[in-house]
Amino acid sequence: MAAEPTAAPEAPATAREWHLAARPEGWPVPTDFALVEAPVRTPGPGEILVRNTDLSVDPYMRGRMNDAKSYIPPFKLGAAMDGGAVGYVVASAAEGFAPGDAVLHGLGWREYATLPAKHAVKVPEIEGVPLSAYLGVLGMPGLTAYAGLLSVGALKEGDRVFVSGAAGAVGSIVGQIAKLKGASLVVGSAGSAEKVDRLTGEFGFDAAFNYKDGPVGEQLAKVAPEGIDLYFDNVGGEHLEAAINALGVHGRAVLCGAIAHYNDTAAAPGPRNLMQVIGKRLRLEGILVGDHDALRPQFVAEVGGWLQEGKLRSEETVVDGFENAAQAFLDMLRGANTGKMVVRLKG
Amino acid sequence: MAAEPTAAPEAPATAREWHLAARPEGWPVPTDFALVEAPVRTPGPGEILVRNTDLSVDPYMRGRMNDAKSYIPPFKLGAAMDGGAVGYVVASAAEGFAPGDAVLHGLGWREYATLPAKHAVKVPEIEGVPLSAYLGVLGMPGLTAYAGLLSVGALKEGDRVFVSGAAGAVGSIVGQIAKLKGASLVVGSAGSAEKVDRLTGEFGFDAAFNYKDGPVGEQLAKVAPEGIDLYFDNVGGEHLEAAINALGVHGRAVLCGAIAHYNDTAAAPGPRNLMQVIGKRLRLEGILVGDHDALRPQFVAEVGGWLQEGKLRSEETVVDGFENAAQAFLDMLRGANTGKMVVRLKG
Repeated sequence: MAAEPTAAPEAPATAREWHLAARPEGWPVPTDFALVEAPVRTPGPGEILVRNTDLSVDPYMRGRMNDAKSYIPPFKLGAAMDGGAVGYVVASAAEGFAPGDAVLHGLGWREYATLPAKHAVKVPEIEGVPLSAYLGVLGMPGLTAYAGLLSVGALKEGDRVFVSGAAGAVGSIVGQIAKLKGASLVVGSAGSAEKVDRLTGEFGFDAAFNYKDGPVGEQLAKVAPEGIDLYFDNVGGEHLEAAINALGVHGRAVLCGAIAHYNDTAAAPGPRNLMQVIGKRLRLEGILVGDHDALRPQFVAEVGGWLQEGKLRSEETVVDGFENAAQAFLDMLRGANTGKMVVRLKG
Repeated sequence: MAAEPTAAPEAPATAREWHLAARPEGWPVPTDFALVEAPVRTPGPGEILVRNTDLSVDPYMRGRMNDAKSYIPPFKLGAAMDGGAVGYVVASAAEGFAPGDAVLHGLGWREYATLPAKHAVKVPEIEGVPLSAYLGVLGMPGLTAYAGLLSVGALKEGDRVFVSGAAGAVGSIVGQIAKLKGASLVVGSAGSAEKVDRLTGEFGFDAAFNYKDGPVGEQLAKVAPEGIDLYFDNVGGEHLEAAINALGVHGRAVLCGAIAHYNDTAAAPGPRNLMQVIGKRLRLEGILVGDHDALRPQFVAEVGGWLQEGKLRSEETVVDGFENAAQAFLDMLRGANTGKMVVRLKG
């Protein structure tokens, strides 16, 4: 039996949400988004109303702005977008959910969200760890890194690992988990000198380089002169080609993202050295986090433990203010973030 | 203790061998090869002398003609080439080998070969099956097909399978094994109408097309309108791109050969649709037969059984005469063969 909706003193009658106003060609621009005031719907049976505190902006959302068949449906034009969010229940008509509960759910890009409780997950609040960690290190990017490295990439102790987009939400966790799991060498690439410093300084990478400083292949050869065993790809393009050159026999490439190509208007040619996949018996395999839910309990236990022990750093780039969400997304596509970028709503 | 060399009444003092006379740029030409008369060496301790009856010409040999680092060393300029061969022992200074034994070994491209017995394998003669089968269906191409499909490709019952270069030594076996192992659809491409007819007529493919008749993607969509689960690549290039488009979620591509590129003088760009590897969580993996020796007993038992039961057809294109070996190799690169091409020496 559904519970009666509880009072929602905190919920206003209307609140703001971000709509997709136009489908971008190439790089998206601010006018592709529209900030819209819309009614806050009272939860029906089985539903909850959530006040969002943090919203996720992720590279994969760029793909959803295209009207193209993919593994998730495109955003609808003229409607609110969605995406990862955390917040607090302010009204509940669902058993097991009460006002004040912290939840993770999929209706981001809005200040308030009314949704079936079964589409939300109650998350424990951990001392010293912000709720937004469930959008990053303890959420989708964290599980992506964990499953990509351990399950798809079959990381072995002693492996030499290269991560591109290494200062990003996924990459910064990949590098740290690789070290914690016994990789003998962890190197990464990023797009600024500051990020490169943080990779080696804060995230414990053995070496890192700025891919804008010169050819990726040459820079990779300097930091990994004997080659690599595992490549975690968040970038695609020149990075992937350089990694295929550097991979040794039975090397593995985990293809997780291709941010170099998300704003392409024409299909870019692939790496010119795919023949090496035969000679070196390489394995290139794609990962989507949705395939790896079975790993979640192990992931939360292990990564949560590392976080609490201080063995793993969870970096966030926090943008304040709901009204800045669209710009945050655009900035993230151009690499403004280190670690996970979240948009924090005024409390 | 090494045996004394046995008499070699059949061995002449000199015999012919094929040398690499020049390293080809792009497509090799007859003058890249030289037919040379050389002494037949008496076997030393532990060695055997073999009269070759059949020589293998294989696509991978093209790579060995380049002076490039690869998984096997390049052929030496001005020296005899090597490659798969079968024949009969005519003299033995090795225990366990006697004149008349049929052997498979790696010193092809010559009429007589003197080699350590440990580099040769005695092979049983099977009634109704030519000795040259150990160069094809029961040898390297057969094991490549078997291991590529079952081990690397993880073929499952009900899979829809696409094979390129399907009339070749490996491809023609891949398609047949896929059917025997319960694939629900097996389609192939080849380079002539005659080959296409043989794929569906003799080899039991469900459908086939001539890749020269039109874009591979369009032709593949016609014969596999609901897509494919497994692609066995002997060709690369346009074929690989079309297959990536056609592969469904968790599809697999076994990269075995790229004959479309073996004579390239510049690195060709890769497929433009590699981003689909992420969205569909595809796995692209290379195979070299040398990694799969552990499968050989199972392979010989299963494939040998199918051959004897008449469930698997072993097609050969036989070129007569040692002096025609170089031309046979050139013709094979241009697709003159159906099934395995062998050069048969005059008995």
